[in-house]
Amino acid sequence: MILKNCAFLITQDQQRQVLEGYDLRISGGKISKIAKNIDSSGEAQIDCKKKIVLPSFINLHTHLAMGLLRGHEDDLELEPWLSSIWKAEEKMSQKEYYAGSKFACLEMIRSGTSAFLDMYFEEKNTLKAAKEAKLRGYFGEGLIDYCGSKKAGPIISKLTELTKYCQSQKSPLLNPIVTPHSCYTCSEELIVESKKFAAKNKLLYGMHLSETRKEVYGCYAKHKKRPAEYLESLGVLDSNFIGFHSSWLTKGEIETLAKYKSSAAHCPTSNMKLATGGAFPYREMKEAGVKIGLGTDGAASNNSLNILGEMKAACLMQKWLRWNASEMSAQQALDLATIGGASILKLNSGSLESGKNADILMLDKNHFSMLPPKNLVSHIVYSCSREAITDLIVNGEFLMNEGKVMSLKEEEVKQEFLEAFERLI
Amino acid sequence: MILKNCAFLITQDQQRQVLEGYDLRISGGKISKIAKNIDSSGEAQIDCKKKIVLPSFINLHTHLAMGLLRGHEDDLELEPWLSSIWKAEEKMSQKEYYAGSKFACLEMIRSGTSAFLDMYFEEKNTLKAAKEAKLRGYFGEGLIDYCGSKKAGPIISKLTELTKYCQSQKSPLLNPIVTPHSCYTCSEELIVESKKFAAKNKLLYGMHLSETRKEVYGCYAKHKKRPAEYLESLGVLDSNFIGFHSSWLTKGEIETLAKYKSSAAHCPTSNMKLATGGAFPYREMKEAGVKIGLGTDGAASNNSLNILGEMKAACLMQKWLRWNASEMSAQQALDLATIGGASILKLNSGSLESGKNADILMLDKNHFSMLPPKNLVSHIVYSCSREAITDLIVNGEFLMNEGKVMSLKEEEVKQEFLEAFERLI
Repeated sequence: MILKNCAFLITQDQQRQVLEGYDLRISGGKISKIAKNIDSSGEAQIDCKKKIVLPSFINLHTHLAMGLLRGHEDDLELEPWLSSIWKAEEKMSQKEYYAGSKFACLEMIRSGTSAFLDMYFEEKNTLKAAKEAKLRGYFGEGLIDYCGSKKAGPIISKLTELTKYCQSQKSPLLNPIVTPHSCYTCSEELIVESKKFAAKNKLLYGMHLSETRKEVYGCYAKHKKRPAEYLESLGVLDSNFIGFHSSWLTKGEIETLAKYKSSAAHCPTSNMKLATGGAFPYREMKEAGVKIGLGTDGAASNNSLNILGEMKAACLMQKWLRWNASEMSAQQALDLATIGGASILKLNSGSLESGKNADILMLDKNHFSMLPPKNLVSHIVYSCSREAITDLIVNGEFLMNEGKVMSLKEEEVKQEFLEAFERLI
Repeated sequence: MILKNCAFLITQDQQRQVLEGYDLRISGGKISKIAKNIDSSGEAQIDCKKKIVLPSFINLHTHLAMGLLRGHEDDLELEPWLSSIWKAEEKMSQKEYYAGSKFACLEMIRSGTSAFLDMYFEEKNTLKAAKEAKLRGYFGEGLIDYCGSKKAGPIISKLTELTKYCQSQKSPLLNPIVTPHSCYTCSEELIVESKKFAAKNKLLYGMHLSETRKEVYGCYAKHKKRPAEYLESLGVLDSNFIGFHSSWLTKGEIETLAKYKSSAAHCPTSNMKLATGGAFPYREMKEAGVKIGLGTDGAASNNSLNILGEMKAACLMQKWLRWNASEMSAQQALDLATIGGASILKLNSGSLESGKNADILMLDKNHFSMLPPKNLVSHIVYSCSREAITDLIVNGEFLMNEGKVMSLKEEEVKQEFLEAFERLI
């Protein structure tokens, strides 16, 4: 398949090129060539002369099934908000997790996201939903023992089961990961045992890290260490570690993350909306060399799964925080949402280059939010909204084509979601 | 015309009701009745059983023709950013102001905005564009003499000319206002003379107010007064005064604004993006009783004219600033964008009540961003993006119907815009 005459091709390669009038060939789910006038005899041709073609987005922190809880509780701080959410979650069973996740997959497709890292409960259902949607998923069972009230053993069994189930799918799109919930909800035993499991199986290992000040002080009171120091002492930091949120970190902790080549997922909207007070230390992270990506968090706290909005929110937050309008440029925000996330997931996507996965997003070059045709990266980050998205290709296959979702039956997904919602209320 | 069986009708009346299954009758540009099962014999019926019906948005601060300068310069602070913008503006003539404004009108229609307050140059062109678009406009020539380099006389002549032109249209949709640019670009004479003109003609009078710290200290250095104190001393504060931005105000200045029943337009995205450092003192304004609305600012600084995004940005900014997740709720943000703005403009719109102008927005109730069907105001503010908007009615007339813009020829508007842009670069 060849994407012919792309009006603009935003490569996100090392040179951050914007190419005009190029073709892009896709073979076996990968980008095999980018050049002008590729010979296309015998291959399917997609006319892209009205398209802006770029790498699709990567969402590094979300809880898909929480789609069901969008708007359940707003305008509350993390602690009371979590209590209310946990109460609602008690009513959720397999079918609700599945329906909520599939609905969230629909939203992600329509938001230009091709890959996501999910952490929630009954994750097998999310995996099933993502498989149908044909998205790239990284699935983590939210491991939680409320700091020792249960033994780690049964929880690790559940993790083992999800991992085996995921691996049995034998799909490059479906990847198991390990996600203990946080320092304040997991016992030392659970953190250490789940890390052993992750290390043995060479899996990514992510957890909520220093989202609120309360969490930091709670950790310090209990362990005489700040969260990143505590995690270092438990031996769980390495290049597979991803800290979700990572807002309330000291410079010392950032250096620790950098030393172990660990990563961080910035979730600006969720942090602002839940008024966590802390601000992701983007500049310090960057200077220290910590790898960074973007996450929306779940639909209960954002309340959308829209990386376009997240890039703008990240730029606005950093600029305002630092009184510095050049803090986090549009280009840097796009980097977080594409190659930044890919690098953290060790995923061969995030840029348009020969040999990379064909994970590709297309925008209508004539959409009003993408005009005038100059500084397109600025428009993508600051101006564009979801209605400019026309196509999403994941692993070489169209999940959305000319505005129509191909991999899911949109009305059915909504219907199933509404039925699950009815059972909850 | 009757909007039949509205799935949800978000009234924004005193009780903030959300009605289900109601009809809404429009007669002579006004809402004449809201009830169940209105007798509709002989009247046009619009089936609204799949619609969420609410008052359309009001944008209190923008520079429409700057649509041409979207992405012209980003990631710069206000001072160098303004220098670069001013240089670009030198190349703009009547045709560019017109084309840029009409393009911005298209964006506003597609963003659910029915009324706007504009301040820019060659404003007659913006008025012509808005007239074609059938939007409600408040048009202010940006008055500027760089603090005395010119006499106020010729500038007041230009203002007189615009006012007469506007009044000669004899349209309730087209309203002249008076807008000196700011304390730092206008001489005392210009501020006072333009206020005299506004008072004589009973016109609203708006200006940039305390957008940056530099502006505040410059004013203090020159006049030994902070901006609002300075304006009070010039006698320009009253219930027709609107301060755009109003970020760097002291509590004392806020009390001064309240004393004169003056108003403020909050522009969170622009402030954050230009890293002005200050934060709109929402809580203090509210407590003091200052009237507040929302503005996007121009497309060169936002870079969109999307009130949906602006409501979310305002909530996020206030919550994060105060470490208080209940600071500015979704309902309060919607209030700013509807009845708040209307009250400032002394406009009989902003809520759905009998006797009010029929300025109405409709959303697809089945759009994924509006699901689940609970807490719709939360979805509008935190989840929804422009693609959920289906219809916009202004003064009883459809400007957009089922996703199609009726009052403008969309492709022609874009073509004209692109031609104007080509002349600029």
